[in-house]
Amino acid sequence: MSKVSGKATAEELLAKAQQPMKDAIRLHSFYGGKIETALKCRVKDWNDFAIWYTPGVSAPCLEIEADPKKAYEYTNKWNRIAVVSDGTRVLGMGDIGPKGALPVMEGKCLLFKYLGGVDAVPITLDTKDPEEIIRTVLLLQPAFGGINLEDISHPKCFEILDRLRAEAEICIFHDDQQGTATVILAALINALKVVGKKMNEVKIAFVGSGAACVATARLLFAAGVRPELTLMVDSKGILHRDRKDISGRKDEFKHKWHLCQITNAKGRRGAAAEALEGADVCIAMSKSEPGTIKPEWVRKMAKDSILFPLANPLPEIWPWVAREAGARIIATGRSDFPNQVNNSNGFPAIFRGALDVRAKTITDEMCLAAADSMAKRAEESGLDDESITPNMNDMEMFCREAVAVGMKAQEQGVALLKMDAATAYKKAKTIIERAQNMTQSMMREGFIPKAD
Amino acid sequence: MSKVSGKATAEELLAKAQQPMKDAIRLHSFYGGKIETALKCRVKDWNDFAIWYTPGVSAPCLEIEADPKKAYEYTNKWNRIAVVSDGTRVLGMGDIGPKGALPVMEGKCLLFKYLGGVDAVPITLDTKDPEEIIRTVLLLQPAFGGINLEDISHPKCFEILDRLRAEAEICIFHDDQQGTATVILAALINALKVVGKKMNEVKIAFVGSGAACVATARLLFAAGVRPELTLMVDSKGILHRDRKDISGRKDEFKHKWHLCQITNAKGRRGAAAEALEGADVCIAMSKSEPGTIKPEWVRKMAKDSILFPLANPLPEIWPWVAREAGARIIATGRSDFPNQVNNSNGFPAIFRGALDVRAKTITDEMCLAAADSMAKRAEESGLDDESITPNMNDMEMFCREAVAVGMKAQEQGVALLKMDAATAYKKAKTIIERAQNMTQSMMREGFIPKAD
Repeated sequence: MSKVSGKATAEELLAKAQQPMKDAIRLHSFYGGKIETALKCRVKDWNDFAIWYTPGVSAPCLEIEADPKKAYEYTNKWNRIAVVSDGTRVLGMGDIGPKGALPVMEGKCLLFKYLGGVDAVPITLDTKDPEEIIRTVLLLQPAFGGINLEDISHPKCFEILDRLRAEAEICIFHDDQQGTATVILAALINALKVVGKKMNEVKIAFVGSGAACVATARLLFAAGVRPELTLMVDSKGILHRDRKDISGRKDEFKHKWHLCQITNAKGRRGAAAEALEGADVCIAMSKSEPGTIKPEWVRKMAKDSILFPLANPLPEIWPWVAREAGARIIATGRSDFPNQVNNSNGFPAIFRGALDVRAKTITDEMCLAAADSMAKRAEESGLDDESITPNMNDMEMFCREAVAVGMKAQEQGVALLKMDAATAYKKAKTIIERAQNMTQSMMREGFIPKAD
Repeated sequence: MSKVSGKATAEELLAKAQQPMKDAIRLHSFYGGKIETALKCRVKDWNDFAIWYTPGVSAPCLEIEADPKKAYEYTNKWNRIAVVSDGTRVLGMGDIGPKGALPVMEGKCLLFKYLGGVDAVPITLDTKDPEEIIRTVLLLQPAFGGINLEDISHPKCFEILDRLRAEAEICIFHDDQQGTATVILAALINALKVVGKKMNEVKIAFVGSGAACVATARLLFAAGVRPELTLMVDSKGILHRDRKDISGRKDEFKHKWHLCQITNAKGRRGAAAEALEGADVCIAMSKSEPGTIKPEWVRKMAKDSILFPLANPLPEIWPWVAREAGARIIATGRSDFPNQVNNSNGFPAIFRGALDVRAKTITDEMCLAAADSMAKRAEESGLDDESITPNMNDMEMFCREAVAVGMKAQEQGVALLKMDAATAYKKAKTIIERAQNMTQSMMREGFIPKAD
């Protein structure tokens, strides 16, 4: 991937940004989808069907009936998750419906498999009702080891995740909340190391207060960031205790109202411009439009400022504009700039780790462990202003992250399996390598044809 | 497969019948499940993720939002089905729950893929409530091209199938009803050819009146069998118009009550013994216990009698006992006797054909076409008393059956795609061959390891 650190024009960048879309139309049509079902057991001859189906199959069925945990042994439940969405907030496209969301969910399943060795199944539901979504996910549990919620609009996504984490017996994860928060925390840990500031001393301004900002704030607080030094900015300005538009809808915006109360101890007023004044860190997940954050605001941030304009596909401010305005460390969601903050570094390995120890839930502490592990791995290749995040093509990072998650789950007593770190590492590595090697083998053997 | 036509003892047969169960425990555990998710598109390098996921993926998403039918082009919806069960009537095991049912559902998915090239996903629901099952299936539709209902207890399975066929926009199929009926009809067509009797003249006695018997009767009537010459026997005897135990629960047993009214025109009374008197055909799907049908009953059947004791794993009467009692053509569900009546000859190709033309539903006529095609294929290799059914290892049969189903769907106006028979044949053959070759390749390359 070529890094564009120089001053490409917005036109050049937009043209470049269009290319994947063009390729996507052609190639999605060529392949007719991105994932399929494959056999993972032998078919030596036709007699094997008497083992995999009637009459042989009744033996594992009856053992599972007597001891339901054995479903993890005799079926692929141990490695199968559902990627569940209602299509109401798909990437930057908003509510494009459950069919429109399907290419994204298949893409997520592809990433789960290739990067984490996880067998994911796309489930896009034909309802937007939170109660129905919750109920459906609960009904789906027997065949799955976990559920990844995806691209569900807020504020209902908070309620859906909270309820499911409380009521489900398998691990439930909302990548747009927990996954995003984890990869941002990993980047922040390293950015702070580079500039020599401390997690519990920095002033952070969040621009945007959607699901990702709210969830990231929560995880950062768990990692030591002080809420009272934090400012959250939504479309109506900085959150504070007198925000009547939010207190008037407390039930609906429970999480946001909580943030009104615990952040902004000084009761500061204003919008993003004011929030950035004196801030050590700005994390923006708002509008995919350069110019949303203005250079003059960046100039008023503290010395050695850290700026994460994370909107996709276009950041809230071009990195070179931010740098000219004095930002020291800049991270975006794009692979063609330095310091990519990329969810794909998180969810595949987090699930790998959780599934390998049969975790009943994915706790905030497991996410913190994942972030620490990611940050450490990036540190091994040397940190500087333009190298704070790990690379997605670093399989070692995924394996170590999975181990960190699995060890934390055991420590917290939420894992059904006991496993030492060496065993967990070997298990994760074997599974992830197999997934990648199998894909490459299918390409070599022609089962995945050449497209051009 | 060795055919046991001789007089093996019941003990020998039982010992032999135990072997697949023993192998199943060992091998299910060894492989940790039978199916997985695989990539079906290239990963040349890390840049491809910008095509399969953000930002490229947004292009197909937006096209689908504008025209939802394009989900069939840009995603695997065209070839993906869900195998949905609540685990309430699993094979001969009864209500073993949604986790207990999972090995069967994964087995079904394996057969769907290997024999029909269909990407099936097991969904075992944590509810037994018919309304919740119906609602959940409707919510699942966007990501799937069809739904195969499986192992749901009766009478609720009738209501669930009827409602879903009426309300769903994708094809819904209950294999225990439609699939079983189709393969029985295929066998009956050929059995009648061998003995020289006609569909609209034979007297048929059904022993058992569960979902499979009721559905088979319905399809046989559609194929020309006369209801008034037909007798249905349940645990309380032959169905007739004065069966108060059924008329008193008309709503619950709607289908059975309908059968009380249209069958048994002579108002015959009695149990299975009486029903078999003078019958040309006996189709039994009742108790998996030899001795359920007695030789003295078979002796009183009409000349050239046809007897299908189809309970699994053990038939209602041993074939050699039936033959000694005078039955001319005997078919069972077992692969180690002649004339196996096997659902696996039906559902994979029926779905292959339905999916290839994007059928909105699977009509009875499509099932009749499948049965005809199967019967013809078996006839090509010569019919006799011990050769009336096709072989499961005959890929040509599956391809032709898929074509027959797809052509009938177009003729009836329930197909979204137009396609001539030659194209449909080529499509089905390419997909099924690929599935089998891919599995064999994964075995050769070690992705599916050797078990012993």
